[in-house]
Amino acid sequence: MNSKFIVIEGLEGAGKSSAIGAVVDVLRQQGIRDVVLTREPGSTPVAEVLRTLIKDGAGNESVTNLAELLMLYAARVQLVEQVIKPALARGNWVVGDRHDLSTHAYQGAGRGINARFLQALREAVLGNFYPDLTLYLDILPEDGLARVRSRAQPDRIEVQPLAFFERARSGYQSRAAVDERIVTIDASPPLDVVTTVVRARLMEWLRAQTETP
Amino acid sequence: MNSKFIVIEGLEGAGKSSAIGAVVDVLRQQGIRDVVLTREPGSTPVAEVLRTLIKDGAGNESVTNLAELLMLYAARVQLVEQVIKPALARGNWVVGDRHDLSTHAYQGAGRGINARFLQALREAVLGNFYPDLTLYLDILPEDGLARVRSRAQPDRIEVQPLAFFERARSGYQSRAAVDERIVTIDASPPLDVVTTVVRARLMEWLRAQTETP
Repeated sequence: MNSKFIVIEGLEGAGKSSAIGAVVDVLRQQGIRDVVLTREPGSTPVAEVLRTLIKDGAGNESVTNLAELLMLYAARVQLVEQVIKPALARGNWVVGDRHDLSTHAYQGAGRGINARFLQALREAVLGNFYPDLTLYLDILPEDGLARVRSRAQPDRIEVQPLAFFERARSGYQSRAAVDERIVTIDASPPLDVVTTVVRARLMEWLRAQTETP
Repeated sequence: MNSKFIVIEGLEGAGKSSAIGAVVDVLRQQGIRDVVLTREPGSTPVAEVLRTLIKDGAGNESVTNLAELLMLYAARVQLVEQVIKPALARGNWVVGDRHDLSTHAYQGAGRGINARFLQALREAVLGNFYPDLTLYLDILPEDGLARVRSRAQPDRIEVQPLAFFERARSGYQSRAAVDERIVTIDASPPLDVVTTVVRARLMEWLRAQTETP
């Protein structure tokens, strides 16, 4: 099978880290050992500096919605061109903790950034590049946030009001409804149940890939 | 007179720093003392981090043309929204070392980034916001570069081939030819001559502003 780019998406506290662990585990069992893990924004030296700016700003300066968006795409173009595409070309699989769908959900639906501009930006940066499979962990914002708010210091995104995450969830759901490369998984059950479903859905998808000529 | 945003533009070694000094000096003589100086990219905490990424990258990672462009606009939206517009609203004049015209010249003409995308980006970030006056110091790339190459370690932009700066100069010139808010000044004479011309052009412009009802 050709190498693939698999992305895990979802709101804060949806269980992405556990799902990524499960995905890597399933791939290993299938004999796929050369897996490159990425997180967005980040995973290159330039993109990690941008991640810090996006999450924490600098000094006491507030980050505008547009600057946030542009820094996200600057980080993404670095990652895609310098890490993800070369890895796929080498035959490595890539498993991503978030990718472009997050920007559709958070900056598009959440921040309300103009959809036409967002589309122009996506096309300029990514063209026709999409993940082969996105596993979207769907959770009620209040349930997800309850999980992460027990963690350390929240960042600029995590302190947004509930309505922001409700809009972001709608953004995820509306895209998942029309894009067959996105598989929605109910992330409200306990983590071990969600992880079992992630493994099952991935196995189904892998089987379908090998059956497709 | 209402506060104004005056920008100095030109290739490396055109004499922008001396011109900025002359502009501030003329403004002071006219009783305008509350002048905010900006440089682009930069002049906010977030934008200065972006400046370092744009000029030097991070680690050994090369910066893609698109990421460079997006970081420039992220820095610009921070500066315009948080420094320049508030300063003008307070009644301060703003004198800028570079602004959006540099991106038209360097990333548009120099890097060859798609003009339609560049225009969409400009509109999303700046809308109808333009400097009141741009003084463009026009110089042959080889003459300008000869001046800066005697300085310290060149950055990512300064090491570009001559043809890059020739395209950037054409970008400057073509925009200056159609935008009456841009005044072109021949920057090939010795610096004290250029500075004298800068002072004279600025004085003419200031007189025209006070005569306009």
